[in-house]
Amino acid sequence: MPGLFITFEGTEGGGKSTQVALLAERLRQLGHRVRVLREPGGTPIGEEIRHLLKHHPANVAMMPEAELLLMNASRAQLVREVIRPALTAGDMVLCDRFYDSTTAYQGHGRQLNLALVQSVIQFAVGHTHPHLTLLLRVPTEVSEARRRARQVATAGPRDRFEEADREFFRRVEHGFDLIAEAEPERVKILDATQSIEAVHDGIWRLVEAHLSRLRDG
Amino acid sequence: MPGLFITFEGTEGGGKSTQVALLAERLRQLGHRVRVLREPGGTPIGEEIRHLLKHHPANVAMMPEAELLLMNASRAQLVREVIRPALTAGDMVLCDRFYDSTTAYQGHGRQLNLALVQSVIQFAVGHTHPHLTLLLRVPTEVSEARRRARQVATAGPRDRFEEADREFFRRVEHGFDLIAEAEPERVKILDATQSIEAVHDGIWRLVEAHLSRLRDG
Repeated sequence: MPGLFITFEGTEGGGKSTQVALLAERLRQLGHRVRVLREPGGTPIGEEIRHLLKHHPANVAMMPEAELLLMNASRAQLVREVIRPALTAGDMVLCDRFYDSTTAYQGHGRQLNLALVQSVIQFAVGHTHPHLTLLLRVPTEVSEARRRARQVATAGPRDRFEEADREFFRRVEHGFDLIAEAEPERVKILDATQSIEAVHDGIWRLVEAHLSRLRDG
Repeated sequence: MPGLFITFEGTEGGGKSTQVALLAERLRQLGHRVRVLREPGGTPIGEEIRHLLKHHPANVAMMPEAELLLMNASRAQLVREVIRPALTAGDMVLCDRFYDSTTAYQGHGRQLNLALVQSVIQFAVGHTHPHLTLLLRVPTEVSEARRRARQVATAGPRDRFEEADREFFRRVEHGFDLIAEAEPERVKILDATQSIEAVHDGIWRLVEAHLSRLRDG
């Protein structure tokens, strides 16, 4: 039985990392091997790209196009070095953000040419697409509050996304909605204002349906 | 008067770097500011990408798709940080290989999806295209002998391109020919088996025509 590839998407404040951990735990208890991945990174080359994205030479603005291509270089490596072999081996692969975040943040948010962004992603992932994408949706005010809380908590320099304006995040949210509309079979929307347990239950029902479909061939 | 963007392309053994240097010298003598560039690199971020491409973690194969995306990340940065401002300032920009090498080596040589390769390049460069591309053509035997001589001279590990088979290089050569056929106005073929002086004279006639066209508006 081949594995399942599940991605978690959405703006900040939806509790993605909590839900990834809960789902991984539940799958492991059922005897599945689970790989939890992050982007950019997840391979030695991807981790170097991650470092370059986060700590590139000071006083030089990284162009959004360069950023998107670096992100997808990491993704191309991750897909071929880790995700495909894991799925072939029957593992469950959970990824905290994947290509829908690129489309939403860089494509819609930064208003790069959407058709070209899609082509770059297509080139990076080839035939490897998530079986299921869980879009954790929260109201704008919640993700905004979350971003502010993080800035206060870390007391560090705000990252570039956090400096962008409210309009940017509205475009990102709208981008996620358009993605869900375009691919309703793959992308499932969850109301992440519910309790952690309620969201996890919703996720589990969707994952269970996929698992039983896999079992029944 | 805006600057001219000239790229040098072709398989090994055509004397590209010699011809770049000769053209740069001649343009400088006429009072032009000249920028000579290399890919990947040419910016602080691009040099880090170059390092990653050449010295990535041992025992890990870099996937061709990741390599192409890294190369184009460096290119996206170079185009916006260096090439566009230089051209706006009226400088002459000479680049020893540019996107046609990506199309020929990765697209045709490694047989990646050509339409997607073109989209990735398009995303990286936007509206910035060379005004003139000089394709220095030598017979297969010449570039093969050149590759062998380099391997002996450096006595170092052969790079991945040099390990690839003769069939690969035939596809690359054919790729360059197809590029020249598709864009005869931009891409000019020069017989690089001629003397260095003769090739330079041929190049100069082409560049002069462009310069006078620029002067006449």
